Amino acid sequence: MMVYRFGWVLVLIICSIVRCKGDYTLNSVREFLVREEDSIIFGLIQRANFPLNANTYLLNSSILPSSNGSSLLDFVVINTEAVQAKGGRYQNPQENPFFPEKLPASLVKPYPVEKFLHAGAASININKSIWKFYLDELLVKWFDTILEDGNYAQTAASDLSLLQVISRRIHYGKFVAEVKFRDSPKKYEPLIRAKDKEGLIKLLTDKSVEEKVIKRVEEKAKVYGKEVTLNDKNDTKYKVDPLVVTTLYKKLLIPLTKEVEVEYLLSRLD
Amino acid sequence: MMVYRFGWVLVLIICSIVRCKGDYTLNSVREFLVREEDSIIFGLIQRANFPLNANTYLLNSSILPSSNGSSLLDFVVINTEAVQAKGGRYQNPQENPFFPEKLPASLVKPYPVEKFLHAGAASININKSIWKFYLDELLVKWFDTILEDGNYAQTAASDLSLLQVISRRIHYGKFVAEVKFRDSPKKYEPLIRAKDKEGLIKLLTDKSVEEKVIKRVEEKAKVYGKEVTLNDKNDTKYKVDPLVVTTLYKKLLIPLTKEVEVEYLLSRLD
Repeated sequence: MMVYRFGWVLVLIICSIVRCKGDYTLNSVREFLVREEDSIIFGLIQRANFPLNANTYLLNSSILPSSNGSSLLDFVVINTEAVQAKGGRYQNPQENPFFPEKLPASLVKPYPVEKFLHAGAASININKSIWKFYLDELLVKWFDTILEDGNYAQTAASDLSLLQVISRRIHYGKFVAEVKFRDSPKKYEPLIRAKDKEGLIKLLTDKSVEEKVIKRVEEKAKVYGKEVTLNDKNDTKYKVDPLVVTTLYKKLLIPLTKEVEVEYLLSRLD
Repeated sequence: MMVYRFGWVLVLIICSIVRCKGDYTLNSVREFLVREEDSIIFGLIQRANFPLNANTYLLNSSILPSSNGSSLLDFVVINTEAVQAKGGRYQNPQENPFFPEKLPASLVKPYPVEKFLHAGAASININKSIWKFYLDELLVKWFDTILEDGNYAQTAASDLSLLQVISRRIHYGKFVAEVKFRDSPKKYEPLIRAKDKEGLIKLLTDKSVEEKVIKRVEEKAKVYGKEVTLNDKNDTKYKVDPLVVTTLYKKLLIPLTKEVEVEYLLSRLD
């Protein structure tokens, strides 16, 4: 016990000095996005540990008598976000809540972060679109058999983790846009002034990079989703169909990240 | 929107009929444990996205002025467990809370589960030992550089996910013990009556299976922890040192699962 206390005191002294730096470059934002691919695929695999468990999503479900018209997922997300908000999660501009109107204040002292984004960034939050896609497109098409095992709270918790990483990936478009803007402001400024959304999308889009991302996440879905065994049996059943992952990237992550980038840039000169 | 509502109504009707069955056999419990290996390694990799962030664990940390002597991790775990308890998580005997004394009642109607365990099972909870090992052994030895990035709430959330899956794996020993007991009660009964802990551990232990588990999790740590790239560069830097994973299995998961098995068996004939 003494060792433990001494250990943490030492930790306290040293860590008040050593802070991680948050330098943003085109390379560093790309590295972040590559790492988020792993988190997204792990999150999908973890969600696949449960069946659809539709009662988690139904409004006025019979499993939750005092629901007042909301679903168990609503309940778990609103209340878990509240705990994390008190813990300071949303002081980091990379994090965007699904229910911003319900957030309590943070109890944690603000951590000094490099101010990198333009002031308008804070008001950009497209989680409502993410939520709708997740429920209406992803879950419904992913789970083609309708089963339940009663682990509704666990299902909602794994939905939340997955939604949070999807949201972080998409809203990271703010940082991507800022880096790209700083790299060549002369290219962006006329389009921003003309409010030329299509021109901005065209300038932001690199088809070859997008194709590489989709190929890589397909490969990752295969590597992480394959059963690892000690004998060399060649089982090609994946924990999550790689098609679910590539569809998620094609239909949600890539277009909505660009939507965030465009929204961010449109207010960049205000 | 109409499609969405219709879709879920249909889902409701069908899923009230189709329930997942929870049959426990030596094969099914082994399959569960193999799947938990993935969750544990994914959890470690997710935790490794953050540095140590020691302020998350310090009692009376300066980041949390109104902490009353507890840490931010305590705060996040107690309050997130409360949300999940209301959502019904702990109605499943596979789930064991870290702060059972702080749990509110479930708001969710109990899901009909097959009663498989002996009545004494509910009182077996060794999460205090898991918590201590996690803080004093795992984190301190794993993070050899002391850094912080201020993402304390996110760190605590990923600690909680990891702690929950570690706890579920270890307490699954109750199911393992029950299956083994039902398979050969004549072998276990005399040892239980004699309260012969060492005899029980010996009977429960299969060294060759344990060695296989450790080899397999090492392999998984390598496969899941290696950077997946499209070019064939042979980078052997892992996101989490496979040694962290094998040490966790050798020092915590395997011995504590057996501790749960023995505790369970000792009250099996009461």
